[in-house]
Amino acid sequence: MNVDALVFDVFGTCVDWRGSIVREARRWSRDLGRTIDGEGLADAWRAAYGPSMEEVKSGRRPFTYLDTLHRETLDRIAGRFGLGGLEEKTLAHINRVWHRLDPWPDTVPGLRRLRAKFLLAPLSNGGVALLTRMAKRAAMPWDLILSGELFEGYKPEPKVYLGAARLLDLPPERVMMVAAHNGDLEAAAALGLKTAFVLRPTEYGPAQTTDLAPSRTWDCSVDSMEALADALGC
Amino acid sequence: MNVDALVFDVFGTCVDWRGSIVREARRWSRDLGRTIDGEGLADAWRAAYGPSMEEVKSGRRPFTYLDTLHRETLDRIAGRFGLGGLEEKTLAHINRVWHRLDPWPDTVPGLRRLRAKFLLAPLSNGGVALLTRMAKRAAMPWDLILSGELFEGYKPEPKVYLGAARLLDLPPERVMMVAAHNGDLEAAAALGLKTAFVLRPTEYGPAQTTDLAPSRTWDCSVDSMEALADALGC
Repeated sequence: MNVDALVFDVFGTCVDWRGSIVREARRWSRDLGRTIDGEGLADAWRAAYGPSMEEVKSGRRPFTYLDTLHRETLDRIAGRFGLGGLEEKTLAHINRVWHRLDPWPDTVPGLRRLRAKFLLAPLSNGGVALLTRMAKRAAMPWDLILSGELFEGYKPEPKVYLGAARLLDLPPERVMMVAAHNGDLEAAAALGLKTAFVLRPTEYGPAQTTDLAPSRTWDCSVDSMEALADALGC
Repeated sequence: MNVDALVFDVFGTCVDWRGSIVREARRWSRDLGRTIDGEGLADAWRAAYGPSMEEVKSGRRPFTYLDTLHRETLDRIAGRFGLGGLEEKTLAHINRVWHRLDPWPDTVPGLRRLRAKFLLAPLSNGGVALLTRMAKRAAMPWDLILSGELFEGYKPEPKVYLGAARLLDLPPERVMMVAAHNGDLEAAAALGLKTAFVLRPTEYGPAQTTDLAPSRTWDCSVDSMEALADALGC
């Protein structure tokens, strides 16, 4: 395959954002003595993710850190899910749940194997600080942290993929984008990167309807990071 | 001390660039069947480091990747040290010796201890790709890679230190600069970062005359990364 580096989508591909938020929301319910709808919160929060980044991508708004976009959404929806009227410190902690997402069970074992052969980095719309703290907490063995923040952009903007290849000092075809989202791979492939699809059929919960299969023939299509390590001979 | 992240100068502070080049030059002598003056090469190469970056810092030249500056110097001095008339592939390999520098013996053990308590990153004038490959080869356990390249600048330009704090999402006073060079610490301290001096009395060889003592009272002054781990309670 002649690839030197693998770059990974994170939310959904490496970590289970929905399950992690649902699990933490149970703790908030207990600690705050409130009934919090964790599933509803996670789904509504994530539903605002694309539209909030679109404001930046379209140029209607200067580059804004994802934590800030997450917080704006939280402030708007908190009341609907049992989180109204909380003090600033509590809201700041809740917003940083995106720094504390748990990997899927196969992620860390798979990355450990892949790391023996390739440079590994996230390439996420999460910020550098978010990705660094998430990786440290979950022992995700990245060689470096790459983020749209470094290029003041958000995937699927071309500058994010090309900026990653440039920082790695590699031509795009020596870099493989790994993602559970066909759209991410479409953008990467159009710029010459190699592509690996990882099926994550419950990222959006049991009723997921999107990205249940590769939309076309990618360089690899697998159903776990361990299977990716197998496919790439690690 | 109330510090969350430690950022490290690399050339001289974490790795022994002079000893590493001298050791590799012995191998090149053998492989190429030439008499190569490794000490002379290392010293002349490094002597051009500051002046070559000064062209960028002064604005006389747009930001230029350190590998390119290293290569320009190599092309200029190769003939003086037994490396004249080599083919491109060999020169490119020799230039990348800066990616293959060995850590001082205390560096990796010290970083492993420090990593349990702090976020750790290089903050070097070496590029992201150089620092990533160096760390992977030497098993330096960084949480992320920070480089002047990310800010299109070179230390001691303020944007490099402040950019690092911004990417870490920390105020400067929660970040400690660790360096064997008083000048690096002066620049960091002026911007509010904490400071740790690590004595490296043979960085420039046995006749070193600079940075043999802290130039003033830094937050820490130690003689190894293990001693820094002791001083910071790791």
